[in-house]
Amino acid sequence: MRYELHYWPGIQGRGEFVRLALEAAALPYVDVARSPGGVARMQRVLDSRDEVHPPFAPPYLIAGSRVIGQTANILLFLGERHALAPRSDAGRLWTHQLQLTLADLVAEVHETHHPISASLYYADQRSEARRRARHFTGERLPKYLGYFERVLTANPRGPRHLVGGRLSYVDLSMFQVIDGLRYAFPQAMRRLARRTPGLGRLHADVASRPRVAAYLASKRRLPHSEDGIFRHYRELDQ
Amino acid sequence: MRYELHYWPGIQGRGEFVRLALEAAALPYVDVARSPGGVARMQRVLDSRDEVHPPFAPPYLIAGSRVIGQTANILLFLGERHALAPRSDAGRLWTHQLQLTLADLVAEVHETHHPISASLYYADQRSEARRRARHFTGERLPKYLGYFERVLTANPRGPRHLVGGRLSYVDLSMFQVIDGLRYAFPQAMRRLARRTPGLGRLHADVASRPRVAAYLASKRRLPHSEDGIFRHYRELDQ
Repeated sequence: MRYELHYWPGIQGRGEFVRLALEAAALPYVDVARSPGGVARMQRVLDSRDEVHPPFAPPYLIAGSRVIGQTANILLFLGERHALAPRSDAGRLWTHQLQLTLADLVAEVHETHHPISASLYYADQRSEARRRARHFTGERLPKYLGYFERVLTANPRGPRHLVGGRLSYVDLSMFQVIDGLRYAFPQAMRRLARRTPGLGRLHADVASRPRVAAYLASKRRLPHSEDGIFRHYRELDQ
Repeated sequence: MRYELHYWPGIQGRGEFVRLALEAAALPYVDVARSPGGVARMQRVLDSRDEVHPPFAPPYLIAGSRVIGQTANILLFLGERHALAPRSDAGRLWTHQLQLTLADLVAEVHETHHPISASLYYADQRSEARRRARHFTGERLPKYLGYFERVLTANPRGPRHLVGGRLSYVDLSMFQVIDGLRYAFPQAMRRLARRTPGLGRLHADVASRPRVAAYLASKRRLPHSEDGIFRHYRELDQ
């Protein structure tokens, strides 16, 4: 079976967290909305009145007859099915808990450039964005990264992974978050690098895994940009 | 075994979603931070350097030797253990997917009164709040509620429940969200009521279940207030 990933073409966005899991586990998938007519196909499921399990928004995954939405929920599904998370009940929920905390951080990153509305342009909420970003880089970002550094350091199986002794989907997502943050907030991230050496190592480590490295070097990996979640606006990097 | 719920005393907040599940399933629990010294106990786990699974923020649940954080993750745990969600794999993930979508809505509600920073007073971000709330009540709220109404209507087991044929934790959370929204945005909610009759029925239905009704009438149920997530500020209810 080939999975169908449905997500906006042209940006990494939240779809990238799913894409990284599919790539790292070498799971066959098609990135539907990147093919001709794909966005319309994606939209049909979102608007469908017959679909019993309609997703609220992309990304969603089609797995046979199942439609699964919400990034963290998709990863929970893939993690259980393809050994991308610990098998024990406690390990499974702990991995998911960290993923949900990463999702909160990602949502706050998005709010830095869209503090008023996602349907307005950045230029129309620039002064509010500047205020919000100052609080984000000054308080929230150090709090989140300090937390994940602590989790990494406290892992009984060693600080190479956030959970357990091998790669899980939350390591892949952590890589993506660090990668995006370095793009969006290079100054703030340089300042925080000394206090979060473990996360720096995890980022490098994940990026150098053969399948991930091959993916990152491929055309399937889109570059960061000012249309995605992690945007670099100089005035927001304080 | 008695569960320990750890959450800020004095407000419903995100803890209320867990509390409603515990109450509706008649599970023995203690609301730790509402007892003398309880906030310090809650804080100790959050700050602990030894805790292998430290939560990022309240609420968290202690279940024997396990510490479980993130509201939706706690409900996933309780749902599996106490039949507060369908047992099938597809039903279990679908319930969780809806819960995560409710969590997104709740986060957006919080942003209406704190669009710049949670660590600033409302008064210090009032004009931004007014702008944000206008987009929320005008675009986001109708989109979310329209979605949940559609899910309810499409439930093959009937529109009394969001998933399956009996009460699940996501029905309880939907009740809480409607309850909070009616408190915070009475005008906007009156306007939307006609288009979401199913959600109105679900709210009344959940509230009248014996255990829920007993809880709502008890002192354990705190009133909505301007310290919680759902706050009523007249100027934000447009």
